[in-house]
Amino acid sequence: MTPARFERRLDVLRLMVDRRLATIVQKNGPADLTDACRYLLSGGGKRLRAILVLLSCDAVGGKIRAALDAGCAVEVMHNFTLVHDDIMDHAQTRRGRQTVHLRWDINTALLSGDVLLGLSYRQLLRTRHRSLPSLVALFTAAVLEVCEGQAMDLEFERRTDVSLGEYFTMIEKKTGRLMSLSSELGALLGGGSKVQVQSMRKFGHYLGRAFQIQDDLLDVLADEKRFGKRVGGDILEGKRTFLLLRAAETARGRDREYLRRVMRGGARGLGSPRAVVRRVTEIYEHYGVVSEAKSLIARNTRHALATLDALPTGNASAMLRWLSEALVNRAF
Amino acid sequence: MTPARFERRLDVLRLMVDRRLATIVQKNGPADLTDACRYLLSGGGKRLRAILVLLSCDAVGGKIRAALDAGCAVEVMHNFTLVHDDIMDHAQTRRGRQTVHLRWDINTALLSGDVLLGLSYRQLLRTRHRSLPSLVALFTAAVLEVCEGQAMDLEFERRTDVSLGEYFTMIEKKTGRLMSLSSELGALLGGGSKVQVQSMRKFGHYLGRAFQIQDDLLDVLADEKRFGKRVGGDILEGKRTFLLLRAAETARGRDREYLRRVMRGGARGLGSPRAVVRRVTEIYEHYGVVSEAKSLIARNTRHALATLDALPTGNASAMLRWLSEALVNRAF
Repeated sequence: MTPARFERRLDVLRLMVDRRLATIVQKNGPADLTDACRYLLSGGGKRLRAILVLLSCDAVGGKIRAALDAGCAVEVMHNFTLVHDDIMDHAQTRRGRQTVHLRWDINTALLSGDVLLGLSYRQLLRTRHRSLPSLVALFTAAVLEVCEGQAMDLEFERRTDVSLGEYFTMIEKKTGRLMSLSSELGALLGGGSKVQVQSMRKFGHYLGRAFQIQDDLLDVLADEKRFGKRVGGDILEGKRTFLLLRAAETARGRDREYLRRVMRGGARGLGSPRAVVRRVTEIYEHYGVVSEAKSLIARNTRHALATLDALPTGNASAMLRWLSEALVNRAF
Repeated sequence: MTPARFERRLDVLRLMVDRRLATIVQKNGPADLTDACRYLLSGGGKRLRAILVLLSCDAVGGKIRAALDAGCAVEVMHNFTLVHDDIMDHAQTRRGRQTVHLRWDINTALLSGDVLLGLSYRQLLRTRHRSLPSLVALFTAAVLEVCEGQAMDLEFERRTDVSLGEYFTMIEKKTGRLMSLSSELGALLGGGSKVQVQSMRKFGHYLGRAFQIQDDLLDVLADEKRFGKRVGGDILEGKRTFLLLRAAETARGRDREYLRRVMRGGARGLGSPRAVVRRVTEIYEHYGVVSEAKSLIARNTRHALATLDALPTGNASAMLRWLSEALVNRAF
């Protein structure tokens, strides 16, 4: 297939997911809650996790339709984590739109997150599979890990001594786990062999890691409009990203001291936001942290692609390869 | 069995539940999150919902052990709703202890609620049952209804025209649904017949309604220390309870105007809290709302007890009868 055909195929899958997602929120519920849930599920986004479920199912020889409810379940659960994270992070926008706790209020955001988690289970339970309870258990283990990842992320905010090892554990839980859940669920629903299921889980794991480091990198490199977030936003918050942690480890003298101050209080007291972002970005470049991130992304992508060798060659696995490359080369 | 033996049996069941609950929170999680979850699950409480699952299983001829994980699942899910409700209601204490969002912070409370919901599913999935997915679906429907009930409750705060019909719908979702889930789950796990399962669901429904109106009533009648909440607290917040809504419907002239003001802003601008509680309580008494509540409680309890006729007579059903009476005659 050509890249243009991959793109079209991706659009078709995304449309399938969006259509199913549009049926998920119950009618006749309390108005604010229903509206907020609809708002959350209609906000666009890449639908990456759902598409990963579909393609992983396809790639081991399953029918995509069999994985659609599970794919939507993971997507809805992902949105549950986003709305609660946005409350905790005091985020103002998400995908270029106002966050729910600002557009409505914190209570509505909290409750709509709870509802999305409930809805994600309801959607998953619509799946037909001979051992559905084991799928629900897998899903539940992922829910718990994502929460743990978020707790670690919050804890990191209060510490300046976060190690890279801790960072990797955190992103594995907070980002990687949903990716590996997606690819594993898809392979299970497609009737993949044990080896294939395990390979697909690893695929999601490596892809998730590459994806998160790429996300960290985009904070300093992205095209603001397409990324949908303010460039340098992580720096201004003193967020513990790969870049900041690695640079704080590598940098010396004044640079190191400057990064420590950014970690302690973000841009506060350090001058104009623009100047802080420029200085930190220069430090990143100077100590080679940007290129280190790039090679880490490349390495994890290679690992992800290698796991696909356990799959039969075909359109779906070719598409997973293309998607992996596209994701880690994205500039938004 | 004598009341003393019922009491002892209740203690045994509660201990079984508490012991199982103590095993639920994972070790090695992020410290704050783990501590908050433990705190939430060790706070005592009547464990009413779990015990209802156990007794309902027993009453249709099942083995209590078979229902223990499901009973704990409902209890954990109930605690998920409490910690999130406490954030939304800015509650300061719960069961006589500081709430999680005050003892830790809002983020920890939010996240520990999410974790409890995940843990409740994990616990439910430990149950052995030939159609476990249908039990999980039942559980999920209840999660969603409880959230809807809470959304209605929040919406009521902004309205002074809440009807009694809306109030009953709200308490059915927010309180009744977990009770009817408990008794239905128990009957299903005990292998009850279709008629028995349906009867047990109704039992929980009526008991839940009686229980909630009793809770409203205790706000004006309770023994403060044993109730664990401040007497008149609902009045001071202008909370839409059966008493307030019914009195606002019945009262005339100045009394009606006074209640409307309480509804709009609680005790604010109306004098000392003690004086407001006294005046509102007098209005309740004057218009016969307290005795109306009492007879509603009695009627719903009778309905609940009547559903037990579908069960084989035995210790468990006798105990359910005793428990129903004890609950609605409680002064705490």
